[in-house]
Amino acid sequence: MITVTKKELVDRIADQLGVKRVIVKRVTQQFLDEVISELGRGNRLEFRDFGVFESKQRAARVAQNPKTMERVPVPSKRTVKFKVGRMMKYRLQEIAKAHASREGQTIPAAKA
Amino acid sequence: MITVTKKELVDRIADQLGVKRVIVKRVTQQFLDEVISELGRGNRLEFRDFGVFESKQRAARVAQNPKTMERVPVPSKRTVKFKVGRMMKYRLQEIAKAHASREGQTIPAAKA
Repeated sequence: MITVTKKELVDRIADQLGVKRVIVKRVTQQFLDEVISELGRGNRLEFRDFGVFESKQRAARVAQNPKTMERVPVPSKRTVKFKVGRMMKYRLQEIAKAHASREGQTIPAAKA
Repeated sequence: MITVTKKELVDRIADQLGVKRVIVKRVTQQFLDEVISELGRGNRLEFRDFGVFESKQRAARVAQNPKTMERVPVPSKRTVKFKVGRMMKYRLQEIAKAHASREGQTIPAAKA
């Protein structure tokens, strides 16, 4: 398993599209920053063919340690969920199949 | 809660950066497409200050319906997980606080 970084994707996209690296870098960074801002405001982001980012504010609560019976305040927390879109699921399966067949492996077919 | 679309973000980023809308659109689309391609190959994407996308291939298996004892084949499936980065968590909390105070609400402080 390889880990791909933002920098690698930026270089690749600049090559693929013939757009200056500095522009690609600023656009992708701004894109990620805007996703964070919207999630911070409690909004939902829906990217077609990709997926949905949602953030939820979990209320502050008081937990109790069952061993010591000590009461522990748990602060409110903003959590983020990502839900894969339908088209992304389909494409993942297709790419995985093509990739596996190139490498001589087989992957069982997806449910139709 | 508002749902923000790709189109809205593209328009906004074009304005913010003074980059042509068509360029912003192609770069963001290519960015999302590359994320899908890498996940399809089983790779991991790590975007600093944002988070990590990971995909896992779940093996095919045979499940059994406990009522009818019928055996049901479950095909292999590629799943995607998104894990929020540490800096994004921090920024979410900061944005949420600033947003709440502008609207006259209060949000309990995050754990230090």
